Amino acid sequence: MDNQSEVVVVGGGIGGLAVANGLARNGFGVRLLERADRFGEVGAGLQLGPNATRLLRDWGLLDDIIDRGVLPEQLILRDAVDGRVLTSLDLGAEFRRRYQAPYVVVHRSDLHDVLLTACKEAGVDLLTGHEVADVHLDADRAQTVCTNGTTFGSEVVLGLDGVDSGLRSTIVGDEKIDSGFVAYRGTMPADEAPESVDQRSVVAWLGPDCHLVQYPLRRGDLINQVAVFRTKGRPAGLDQAFADCCEAVRAGLGSLWRDRNWPMTDRLPTATWSHGRIGLLGDAAHPMLQYLAQGACQALEDAQVLTDQAVKHRRDHDWPAVLEETQNIRAPRTARTQRTARIWGEIWHVEGTARLLRNELMRTRDRSDHSPIDWLYGV
Amino acid sequence: MDNQSEVVVVGGGIGGLAVANGLARNGFGVRLLERADRFGEVGAGLQLGPNATRLLRDWGLLDDIIDRGVLPEQLILRDAVDGRVLTSLDLGAEFRRRYQAPYVVVHRSDLHDVLLTACKEAGVDLLTGHEVADVHLDADRAQTVCTNGTTFGSEVVLGLDGVDSGLRSTIVGDEKIDSGFVAYRGTMPADEAPESVDQRSVVAWLGPDCHLVQYPLRRGDLINQVAVFRTKGRPAGLDQAFADCCEAVRAGLGSLWRDRNWPMTDRLPTATWSHGRIGLLGDAAHPMLQYLAQGACQALEDAQVLTDQAVKHRRDHDWPAVLEETQNIRAPRTARTQRTARIWGEIWHVEGTARLLRNELMRTRDRSDHSPIDWLYGV
Repeated sequence: MDNQSEVVVVGGGIGGLAVANGLARNGFGVRLLERADRFGEVGAGLQLGPNATRLLRDWGLLDDIIDRGVLPEQLILRDAVDGRVLTSLDLGAEFRRRYQAPYVVVHRSDLHDVLLTACKEAGVDLLTGHEVADVHLDADRAQTVCTNGTTFGSEVVLGLDGVDSGLRSTIVGDEKIDSGFVAYRGTMPADEAPESVDQRSVVAWLGPDCHLVQYPLRRGDLINQVAVFRTKGRPAGLDQAFADCCEAVRAGLGSLWRDRNWPMTDRLPTATWSHGRIGLLGDAAHPMLQYLAQGACQALEDAQVLTDQAVKHRRDHDWPAVLEETQNIRAPRTARTQRTARIWGEIWHVEGTARLLRNELMRTRDRSDHSPIDWLYGV
Repeated sequence: MDNQSEVVVVGGGIGGLAVANGLARNGFGVRLLERADRFGEVGAGLQLGPNATRLLRDWGLLDDIIDRGVLPEQLILRDAVDGRVLTSLDLGAEFRRRYQAPYVVVHRSDLHDVLLTACKEAGVDLLTGHEVADVHLDADRAQTVCTNGTTFGSEVVLGLDGVDSGLRSTIVGDEKIDSGFVAYRGTMPADEAPESVDQRSVVAWLGPDCHLVQYPLRRGDLINQVAVFRTKGRPAGLDQAFADCCEAVRAGLGSLWRDRNWPMTDRLPTATWSHGRIGLLGDAAHPMLQYLAQGACQALEDAQVLTDQAVKHRRDHDWPAVLEETQNIRAPRTARTQRTARIWGEIWHVEGTARLLRNELMRTRDRSDHSPIDWLYGV
């Protein structure tokens, strides 16, 4: 392949690999540029709702992912202070029938690896060590200029370069928004986990300005944890943030990685993801807080819709139309997901009277009522 | 009657009259001392739950009260900002069957008048213009000394002198607690009420740090209103406090009395209501915020229990035992009512995420589920 291709994908994370794979499987010539020197994912566990696993199954990748992951039995919400179960969602046969796919938890690096292998098999030209400096648009081509001096020509450039997307700034003039919360993550061997850890379900412990999520990974060999707490206006660290939580929550904190943490940021929804032959997808288009565990899932949905539109326009090569139609199909849904994730975060972290109300609402709700999640997981 | 009687009741409000009537109807010699120069009630409407109307029926007074009041069709909670109905409680035949009595709203002065007439008929010695200065306890008598120099001897002194009870200070060394909210009240002719007023139900509009209650009185000829809002830390007045509320709420504010208002106060529950021959009842024993509309109702319950215990001890004249048994029977229930009223107030006045949770909880709750109120209204 010379320096020309039909498609340049910027960013080799989960979203970039997914869209590169989708396009390449459908016969498009795809070059993917990753800034880092090698492919890989930082982080730990990742939740895949049935809206994502349906796609992965269509792409022939779900069995591999299930092999490396876990099918959790339930999603369980508990009060982090008194430890009580607030509500739960059964992820068993009825759930899988309703949404025509399973709920899967998997290590981020495993999902990434499956997608990377798929891209290689599909003939994607995968380049690491290529940081994009600029994109120039001609009448019918785009020129992607890298900081190392290389330039790649293509009919379209897809920016999947994450929440800090450099390409986004050429399309939307907004700023990332700090939620004031930070996440600490970590995994531990399942046989070293505290007894209080449920090794078969996804459990979220909801506390005042803090929460802890726990679930199994790697066929149950690992326990994944994410601890999130408010730092804004609170100089105290991880342990102090969870000081009022029950023993079962505090018992998990010891195995979190202390050398790294993730500020939780998002942006306001935008309906404009593209400019001519440059289009944004995934976190670059709609970064969201993690409360719905939908960041990666929505990027996979983007990949499917973009691919569908590209196939539709295969003959006319009208990439601006592909990008615009993708954005028009996707933006209302991702905006809802972004907004709902924010509200969900508020609800998770309440205290006082609001906590009483939340707990009563959750405890008394009809657990067989799927209407609050049908919009997200439904076919 | 000379200056000796079996019982001295201090305070001629609804609670004082109720207990005086109960004792006199059962053959006790009762003298009632009212500080004011004449009997009467300030305020406007009053709600009587079935826990109160069952007693009034037993005392032969309910028909009179219904004649002067209204049997509302429903209790309705609405969001004061968007105006939406949150939940409702049907007060019709099924409610009356369940609790074996009706829900009645009546003018305070009408209830007071019915009780005053009953006391007169029962032979209570009713004295106005008698403010109690002190009570002395002997071995087997109490001496009630008034500021006008008169002294009354009795076997027992019952303090129903309200939230600012002078007698309470001889038994409990606590302070009244200001909730930071103030109530404005008022009545208007029903045919002059704004169209948005529901003339057949009790409607509470719940807003951020404010609420408005509306219901009919006097066979539907009057509309009663109570507007409550937080003043603590907010110098703004009534109209500003409701500025964010919907038109239907703001339309009612014009007919509130502006020359008088009621700071909303209560006290912490106490298990000690008596000292020897001095006993507290009603607001003097357990003043509560008005969110459950139970202040008068609980005073009526006190009257019944005290009377029952007095009858039980008719032969041994062991009034200290009567008071202690009354307090032991009543205090857990009135403490729950005091605490629940406070929580209810918090729930009524939330905003932001807590408001979303409250509204969702109220809107989705099963309206046929009476379990949250059975403890209060049940037989």
